[in-house]
Amino acid sequence: MEEIDFTELTRYAKSFTGLTKEHEILLAEAGTTLKPALPDVTEGFYATLQSIDKTAPFIDGHLDSLKQTHLKWLEGIFTGPFNETYAQSMYQVGQVHVKVHLPVEFMSGGMSLIANELIALVSKTYPGEPERAADLLSAINAVMGFSLLIMQQSYQISSLSAELDRFLAITGMSRKLFNNLAGAYHN
Amino acid sequence: MEEIDFTELTRYAKSFTGLTKEHEILLAEAGTTLKPALPDVTEGFYATLQSIDKTAPFIDGHLDSLKQTHLKWLEGIFTGPFNETYAQSMYQVGQVHVKVHLPVEFMSGGMSLIANELIALVSKTYPGEPERAADLLSAINAVMGFSLLIMQQSYQISSLSAELDRFLAITGMSRKLFNNLAGAYHN
Repeated sequence: MEEIDFTELTRYAKSFTGLTKEHEILLAEAGTTLKPALPDVTEGFYATLQSIDKTAPFIDGHLDSLKQTHLKWLEGIFTGPFNETYAQSMYQVGQVHVKVHLPVEFMSGGMSLIANELIALVSKTYPGEPERAADLLSAINAVMGFSLLIMQQSYQISSLSAELDRFLAITGMSRKLFNNLAGAYHN
Repeated sequence: MEEIDFTELTRYAKSFTGLTKEHEILLAEAGTTLKPALPDVTEGFYATLQSIDKTAPFIDGHLDSLKQTHLKWLEGIFTGPFNETYAQSMYQVGQVHVKVHLPVEFMSGGMSLIANELIALVSKTYPGEPERAADLLSAINAVMGFSLLIMQQSYQISSLSAELDRFLAITGMSRKLFNNLAGAYHN
């Protein structure tokens, strides 16, 4: 992995998504109640992905292992902690997405669909506690935004790097020549 | 603008974020109640952006016009309709973000912060109606996801195109030569 300062990235991503220590505690507390319902969230999510023309082919043949990975991540957002290790794992997910040629919009689309499921779950689970439900939804929004931000920043860096590789392959130019030209280029 | 099929993009982005006709109606209905509070959401959002080292410089000197544009968009998500024209406007926002060199994470980070503000607003506005609040939060999640998806897909296309321009400028290669090489390239 490149020399990423994951401490700094974690701090930055938290400030940009409003993820606080209080959210982290709230999510872990709610986890005890919500975790048994998370397999249904994963099922609902993949059922929707299978119904979309453009996403279905990416799932085909990998459904069980994808669901497993997904559920593990989902349990993680109700576990924490959201530290450098977590940031690093989300960063790797962004890189893997580029490697397997997932279109960029799969990340934000996926998060929207999962958030839809979680909003329904939270309101069903805490019907008489609107304040608690609202706090928890804020926490969920923040942690999902935090995860998305890191994943997408990594995706962007990886996809620009893949674009350079493609350019070099097409032009037959060596990386060394390109780097020399880039070093000499001023505009 | 490139030949984008905005009818198809709208359909796709709705399926991938769960945005429905019912959401659209719900958002417009809630708009009557919520619109007077939206300037505070915009204020809160920009106050946070001003507190973040990396975002502050992008705002400096443009605060009033940015707030105005932002509030207009925010009112739009409580107005609708979310059709081809709306999709086209979000697509343009993605292109503008690349043109003014906004980092990729500003889009998802921004959406997270705005959603935080809206969750708080909705729970404050409908304290005795948890079901209505939950439905409205789903609708808000879906329409923000819808907007983000289109904006990011556009950002990605624009940034890869800008990257190719950069490669061509650095290497001094003409676009015609590159296109010929790309056409001949098989791998």
